[in-house]
Amino acid sequence: MKIRDIIWNSDTVRGRIFDWCVIFLIVFSLVTLPISTLPNLPPTLEKILSFSENVILWLFTIEYILRFITASKTWKYVFSFYGVIDALCVIPSWILMATGAEFDLRVLRTIRLFRVLRLLKLARYNDTMERFGKALSYSKHELLVFLCATMMLLYMSSVGIYYCENSVQPEAFKSVFHSMWWAVATLSTVGYGDVYPVTTWGKIFTFLILMAGLGLVAVPAGIVSAALQKVMEEEKH
Amino acid sequence: MKIRDIIWNSDTVRGRIFDWCVIFLIVFSLVTLPISTLPNLPPTLEKILSFSENVILWLFTIEYILRFITASKTWKYVFSFYGVIDALCVIPSWILMATGAEFDLRVLRTIRLFRVLRLLKLARYNDTMERFGKALSYSKHELLVFLCATMMLLYMSSVGIYYCENSVQPEAFKSVFHSMWWAVATLSTVGYGDVYPVTTWGKIFTFLILMAGLGLVAVPAGIVSAALQKVMEEEKH
Amino acid sequence: MKIRDIIWNSDTVRGRIFDWCVIFLIVFSLVTLPISTLPNLPPTLEKILSFSENVILWLFTIEYILRFITASKTWKYVFSFYGVIDALCVIPSWILMATGAEFDLRVLRTIRLFRVLRLLKLARYNDTMERFGKALSYSKHELLVFLCATMMLLYMSSVGIYYCENSVQPEAFKSVFHSMWWAVATLSTVGYGDVYPVTTWGKIFTFLILMAGLGLVAVPAGIVSAALQKVMEEEKH
Amino acid sequence: MKIRDIIWNSDTVRGRIFDWCVIFLIVFSLVTLPISTLPNLPPTLEKILSFSENVILWLFTIEYILRFITASKTWKYVFSFYGVIDALCVIPSWILMATGAEFDLRVLRTIRLFRVLRLLKLARYNDTMERFGKALSYSKHELLVFLCATMMLLYMSSVGIYYCENSVQPEAFKSVFHSMWWAVATLSTVGYGDVYPVTTWGKIFTFLILMAGLGLVAVPAGIVSAALQKVMEEEKH
Repeated sequence: MKIRDIIWNSDTVRGRIFDWCVIFLIVFSLVTLPISTLPNLPPTLEKILSFSENVILWLFTIEYILRFITASKTWKYVFSFYGVIDALCVIPSWILMATGAEFDLRVLRTIRLFRVLRLLKLARYNDTMERFGKALSYSKHELLVFLCATMMLLYMSSVGIYYCENSVQPEAFKSVFHSMWWAVATLSTVGYGDVYPVTTWGKIFTFLILMAGLGLVAVPAGIVSAALQKVMEEEKH
Repeated sequence: MKIRDIIWNSDTVRGRIFDWCVIFLIVFSLVTLPISTLPNLPPTLEKILSFSENVILWLFTIEYILRFITASKTWKYVFSFYGVIDALCVIPSWILMATGAEFDLRVLRTIRLFRVLRLLKLARYNDTMERFGKALSYSKHELLVFLCATMMLLYMSSVGIYYCENSVQPEAFKSVFHSMWWAVATLSTVGYGDVYPVTTWGKIFTFLILMAGLGLVAVPAGIVSAALQKVMEEEKH
Repeated sequence: MKIRDIIWNSDTVRGRIFDWCVIFLIVFSLVTLPISTLPNLPPTLEKILSFSENVILWLFTIEYILRFITASKTWKYVFSFYGVIDALCVIPSWILMATGAEFDLRVLRTIRLFRVLRLLKLARYNDTMERFGKALSYSKHELLVFLCATMMLLYMSSVGIYYCENSVQPEAFKSVFHSMWWAVATLSTVGYGDVYPVTTWGKIFTFLILMAGLGLVAVPAGIVSAALQKVMEEEKH
Repeated sequence: MKIRDIIWNSDTVRGRIFDWCVIFLIVFSLVTLPISTLPNLPPTLEKILSFSENVILWLFTIEYILRFITASKTWKYVFSFYGVIDALCVIPSWILMATGAEFDLRVLRTIRLFRVLRLLKLARYNDTMERFGKALSYSKHELLVFLCATMMLLYMSSVGIYYCENSVQPEAFKSVFHSMWWAVATLSTVGYGDVYPVTTWGKIFTFLILMAGLGLVAVPAGIVSAALQKVMEEEKH
């Protein structure tokens, strides 16, 4: 069937044109989203943005319906990664429109970002993605253990700093949950400077936590590096 | 003996159920701790939290006594890593209760965090842990030398910045110890912004220290990475 | 021809002297640039700086003309990396002078920085550069995929934090574009502290984004490390 | 000769005792330095600190003289790494005392920190140090090239941000030299928050510079990791 070929096959000329049109629509939609949040937009531009968004929603809906109809295995597509993403880009908008809800649905449009991943297929980056996938699969146990260790460190930091600082800064370190914000900002080394320890014990505690935390940061780099090299070596043989 | 099997053997159904119950109690206790620090809790919730904490303390005490009695080698258990952790989760609370001290013992409850490590055994993550252990053991000398280098850099930074900034910012850089807080926040690249150099010499000194410090940060990642790869290669043969 | 030898050949004594003179002029020009931006310079010094800059411009122009004339393949030189840099160091200054424009052309002088790269040739660092070049070429696909992932994370962070914080901090998070500044400062872990989330949802969102972001930072280090090792291994054989 | 054995030979019992005494004196001197900077010290403690410092200076002087006399090759020792450090720990203090200068010589005492490196010899960490030395020697060209790239990025950042921000924040970005402080704090991701761009162009420029800068940070970790692995492999054979 002709339409099936155009939609699903990116080796023919028409198929490639179709794919690039879809990519263009996605990118266009992603670019208009931030623009529409700018304050004091001229009403004309706002109308154009709103109209173009409606057009894109219709086009995406038609595309989804076509994919749904022409897919060789309909349900396999619906529950595949791209199938779910395609649906999430379209269905919530329609539900919200139908119910006339006031909820700002623009945040849902960021889901379209994942549709950009189709670009990788077009640009024939399958090998690179596969290599990353393999490296991730080799190191998934290590990364999970590392994630647990990070969570434990975050928990201990939050409880510890709460007991050091709560009496002196009752507002910033109101509870362990509030202290967690400090722990996140500190262990990630962002350090906004909105909350920081002022007591001597709090500072010593921060020092110890940071020594452990910086050691932790070195581990995932080592894990990923070792896994990538293993993949590269296997490819040689 | 039956009870010994349930407590120590995680291969039987009953053993696994027992282990998961213990894990649930630990996680429950860890979750209630931050909640109990929230200000303005309704008195009912506070009573429930306090009651549940008492129940958990009793259950942990019973578990420790059972483990103590049924352990095949009692003293080996008592002085093992998990034995010490299990004891630390229980004994201080009883001592404080017995003496009626006013000291807030909740911070001691974070020790229970280490009991969560039993999860790794249940989830059969022994291989991964062993690999990390090996990598750590291979690189322990290097990491120790690196730690010494970091400490030396911290010391030099603190003394140096003290002489650069003390005369201009006598409050923030009151002594070398106060300057150490700046050194910790700067070399870890957290940079809260509560103390920073303002003199030209202090800024030049910060630049030099950061160049050396950022180089240092690269080293442990390299050490861990090299060690992990060595372990992986050995596994192949 | 003699002049050609002096200009293009760095193996003869005269050629090396010529090269080092050019390097000296470049470095001198790069050093005077920041000095000329200092406020309240004595008029004498300002005159000297302006005069020396004119002399250097003339010398660079003469050098470019000589290179243009004596190059064995004129057009190959003009469109080579160094040819373009050499031209960019000279032509804009002349155009601005000729048109008498008021535009401050000093920022264009930073282009001369790239001329310093010739030092690498003189210092015979070709091997090292080649090794870096190879490592970069091996890992270019991976680095590109990583760059895309970073961009996607930046986009998602900006949109997400906008919806979390816009209603509470309408000034700092005025639009998605304004939020992008927060995303850049946070994901790079710089954390100036001029904008940071204050709502609970914004803080939780920041935590999730940072967990993903810190994982991302580990990847390029792993990629570069694996590529450099591959190059080293190939050199052995 | 007996004294020579005690001083230079750390294999005999007396030699080891001597070495540990020296290490103890160094550490003691390093600990008293920060204490002596504390404000409002009781006069008695100040007198004790000053007296102990004089005693240590005398002991170090005697040690240096003994080493000078008993060294098998006197001048080789004097110009060796440890010889220079030993002299720098003693001579400036005497000169300052002799001339009665008011200069605060405590900062010079940090040089003693390097004497602690002798600990590595005592703790028999020679292998580890040698491995680091080899890895450093393998990667010295790469690290130098990386250093140059960092310096170039710093220079370009400073000049660029000066032209973006100078007109709006004339105080913080007074000249390229002042902007360099911003560049150091930003590229190291410390981000104190005392200076940051406020113009749109300045923010976009910061974003670009950070993308390049974070890539740079990944490189030395990769270099060190690759070099350490090469050393480990060589040891196997």
